[in-house]
Amino acid sequence: MTQNIFDNDEFFSAYMDLRLHRKNYNDFMEQPKMQKLMPDSKGKAILDIGCGYGHNCLHFAENGAAHVTGIDISEKMLKEARRNYAHPVITYMRMDMAELGTLNNSYDLVYSSLAFHYAEDFPALVHDIYKLLRPGGILLFSQMHPIITATYDGKGHYNHDAHGDCISYTFSDYGREGKRSGFWYVDNVENYHRMMGTIITTLAHTGFFVEDMVETLPDEHAL
Amino acid sequence: MTQNIFDNDEFFSAYMDLRLHRKNYNDFMEQPKMQKLMPDSKGKAILDIGCGYGHNCLHFAENGAAHVTGIDISEKMLKEARRNYAHPVITYMRMDMAELGTLNNSYDLVYSSLAFHYAEDFPALVHDIYKLLRPGGILLFSQMHPIITATYDGKGHYNHDAHGDCISYTFSDYGREGKRSGFWYVDNVENYHRMMGTIITTLAHTGFFVEDMVETLPDEHAL
Repeated sequence: MTQNIFDNDEFFSAYMDLRLHRKNYNDFMEQPKMQKLMPDSKGKAILDIGCGYGHNCLHFAENGAAHVTGIDISEKMLKEARRNYAHPVITYMRMDMAELGTLNNSYDLVYSSLAFHYAEDFPALVHDIYKLLRPGGILLFSQMHPIITATYDGKGHYNHDAHGDCISYTFSDYGREGKRSGFWYVDNVENYHRMMGTIITTLAHTGFFVEDMVETLPDEHAL
Repeated sequence: MTQNIFDNDEFFSAYMDLRLHRKNYNDFMEQPKMQKLMPDSKGKAILDIGCGYGHNCLHFAENGAAHVTGIDISEKMLKEARRNYAHPVITYMRMDMAELGTLNNSYDLVYSSLAFHYAEDFPALVHDIYKLLRPGGILLFSQMHPIITATYDGKGHYNHDAHGDCISYTFSDYGREGKRSGFWYVDNVENYHRMMGTIITTLAHTGFFVEDMVETLPDEHAL
């Protein structure tokens, strides 16, 4: 089962504060790139895996999606979504992404923003998604960059010069895939490190045609 | 034009000594992985880009290839190839990989071992190769890992603990693509840094189905 850290009170408060009130990587880096790659939502059946508080589901709905299913493991997130990001074509459901195999629908687009690094079994996840997609369907997802997830215990770090400018990044353990557990607002936030080659090869061997691979993090931060 | 560093006397001597007489990454890491991904050579028309002293061409020939064309920019390398790795089905030709568009043949397999990081124009290279491949043809190539090519002036480095064990890797400039010039036996050895996303996306947009992406370097060295 995927860790449900978003239902931790302290984590949830800090995370929502970050997303709604502070400058964050999502708004400045990840979301702009995702929106560029986004296919037209009009008339589409869309599944949003790890939908969080529902802002992307609402975006799809307002752009003409026929139906949007938003799943998340966190009740707190879904409560926010149902309260502030509701729409007649959206269904919010509590579901661990490890249980996608229990869904009976099919989708034109499976979307996921920064959730897949929480998945323990990536081949199973990709396989489940492939089965849920209609012919010609698209998977669009983002995840933490493997260079960032690599280091055990979050000890990967940016190095700064005397002026505080970022000059390099130090990391380790890239070749050791598997669980990482680190501090992000609270202790023991778990995610899973996988090499880029593993991600691409898993997608390809499942049947996906990998069309675009966009790296945003290092572009701005590892300079 | 691609730099012809292999015809530099000092570089050539040191490189041949490395490949023929010393433990090297090619023999322990790169070549084993490449051989695992290698399709059957039997009856195939094969192009080896940056064939060097011809050991791979000879391998293809001895495994039943119908015809092997080995191209390299270095006369010194080709002299070695013609002297020690000749075979009736192999043709060695001096050619810059930037000039592949002048070839009129077609191939079942285009192979390249650790040469593409020397190519200035990757989209043009991939486009030229795509045009040379027969339907169902395969491109199998290796190149330096982008984490290693990233840092300007070769200042990326492994960090060691008191026992001399490698504990981390420090790098920078990952998001800044383009020429790098560093020391490898001699000064000003040029190669080109491209992000992993750029490599994968360029291949996909040209028409290639990316089937496997294997990372060998960090597996052993960034631990």
